[in-house]
Amino acid sequence: MMIYDRVALIGLGLIASSMGHAIKAAGLANAVGFDTDASVRQVARDVGFCTVVDSLAEAVAGADLVVLAVPVGAMGDVAAAMAPHLKPGATVTDVGSVKQAVIAAVAPHIPTGVHFVPGHPLAGTEYSGPRAGFATLFQDRWCLLIDDGADADALSRLRTFWEGMGANVDVMDAAHHDVVMAVVSHTPHLIAYTMVGVAEHVRRVSDSEIVKYSASGFRDFTRIASSDPTMWRDIFLTNKDAVLDILGRFSEELFALQRAIRIGDGNHLHDYFTRTRAIRRGIVEARQDTAAPNFGRGGERG
Amino acid sequence: MMIYDRVALIGLGLIASSMGHAIKAAGLANAVGFDTDASVRQVARDVGFCTVVDSLAEAVAGADLVVLAVPVGAMGDVAAAMAPHLKPGATVTDVGSVKQAVIAAVAPHIPTGVHFVPGHPLAGTEYSGPRAGFATLFQDRWCLLIDDGADADALSRLRTFWEGMGANVDVMDAAHHDVVMAVVSHTPHLIAYTMVGVAEHVRRVSDSEIVKYSASGFRDFTRIASSDPTMWRDIFLTNKDAVLDILGRFSEELFALQRAIRIGDGNHLHDYFTRTRAIRRGIVEARQDTAAPNFGRGGERG
Repeated sequence: MMIYDRVALIGLGLIASSMGHAIKAAGLANAVGFDTDASVRQVARDVGFCTVVDSLAEAVAGADLVVLAVPVGAMGDVAAAMAPHLKPGATVTDVGSVKQAVIAAVAPHIPTGVHFVPGHPLAGTEYSGPRAGFATLFQDRWCLLIDDGADADALSRLRTFWEGMGANVDVMDAAHHDVVMAVVSHTPHLIAYTMVGVAEHVRRVSDSEIVKYSASGFRDFTRIASSDPTMWRDIFLTNKDAVLDILGRFSEELFALQRAIRIGDGNHLHDYFTRTRAIRRGIVEARQDTAAPNFGRGGERG
Repeated sequence: MMIYDRVALIGLGLIASSMGHAIKAAGLANAVGFDTDASVRQVARDVGFCTVVDSLAEAVAGADLVVLAVPVGAMGDVAAAMAPHLKPGATVTDVGSVKQAVIAAVAPHIPTGVHFVPGHPLAGTEYSGPRAGFATLFQDRWCLLIDDGADADALSRLRTFWEGMGANVDVMDAAHHDVVMAVVSHTPHLIAYTMVGVAEHVRRVSDSEIVKYSASGFRDFTRIASSDPTMWRDIFLTNKDAVLDILGRFSEELFALQRAIRIGDGNHLHDYFTRTRAIRRGIVEARQDTAAPNFGRGGERG
């Protein structure tokens, strides 16, 4: 079912290419795409998930929905450049992982009569680029839309569009979004990056030993830590306050556990480890994950 | 092919039950099992992965191989209790996640004429108990055996036994084992436990939000942090020195990244995140994991 006549995808990486495939599969719109990198445009043409054009102005001209799918740090510049070419009554959205900073960068450029409804699909893989996309990336994943003064009709139509790509949609304000993401995504990623970096620097343990014996929790960290560096740099720089807040709490808790190890306080450790099991059960019950032992991948044993 | 006439499994949890199934499947030995908990013995009888007996003495009597599969903190007491009943020429091994502390606790109780070859299969799931085992748990996983003065024939036979259960075997000394595990397993687990604990304490983010939106790296942490609390308490208390060393390095690196976020040093972040990608590629190439996008589970997106 057509939700928009014409959707412009700006920045043709994993998310936009997956949107292109999903739009096509469900017949939600005619998708047009643009990327500043000519080689990315060529790959996108070869893959064929949307009609690729050679300028930003051409991409957004006549579009009912414009999706900004560029790194968070580039959103403001792209918004400024496309603003004069936006169709009156159009909706602009984005797929950035941080919302307050994106709103601060983009909103000032949105012309009167154009609606801005920020968004964030909680979906992805550790791969990037126009070849990485696939139509089912958003299937049964959450997409968060931001309602800070958004036009109700524009918001409702964008929700239907994301649902058409298979996503579940929740609406919240930008500040809350940024705290939630700092907890469930941004800080865990920083920690995983750090642990992988530490492993690299322990001279007594060789790279090949890390690789061979990593079936023990560490493997998940390496997967998390292999995501796109530019995207993650921008996330940490732009969701700074929330991430620093959560990092501060993390350090406090880690030091308390470290102290328990040092002084041999087994009860503290056992109590802590028992409490953390409950959240996992909740996640399995909410069907965000499977209860199959370790996804058949082995590796929980110490 | 029979490797031992009689193998005694002491402590009938995930590892022993998996060994029982694997021994049976490959016809490696006659397996006898004991657990101090009568209800665990009953479940083990019902599942039927070995012949269950009602005393430790009865289990080890006549056994060519005795496998200590109890929590690391209980190894010493079990070794002391079974010592008088061991058959001359028998081999004692264990499956503990820490090796120096287990050797210190167990070796003094091993009688002259009995061989002690410590071991550690790097395999497991987040489930525990006698119902959790399955025959292929060790398939293509590593099992580390410790050669600190071990009898060469006893070591060689134990290696063949583990290979018979599908494992790849590497031999190293106990101190090195403990450092390697502190890096690839113990410290990552502590960090995952900590992050899950922090998430629980952030009042502005509800439990249901954590559960719903955890498709973002955090989900892997909750899985890691749902492992057996007693096992992990004992690991941290007994591999204290190596874990505290790695935790110290981790804090240093994390603070450097935290500072980069605070002062807005994007280059530091980008360089760090770029370096961590290489280890991931090594792990995929070593076939310890799959290159499929995120195992179809979504969730790398910030």
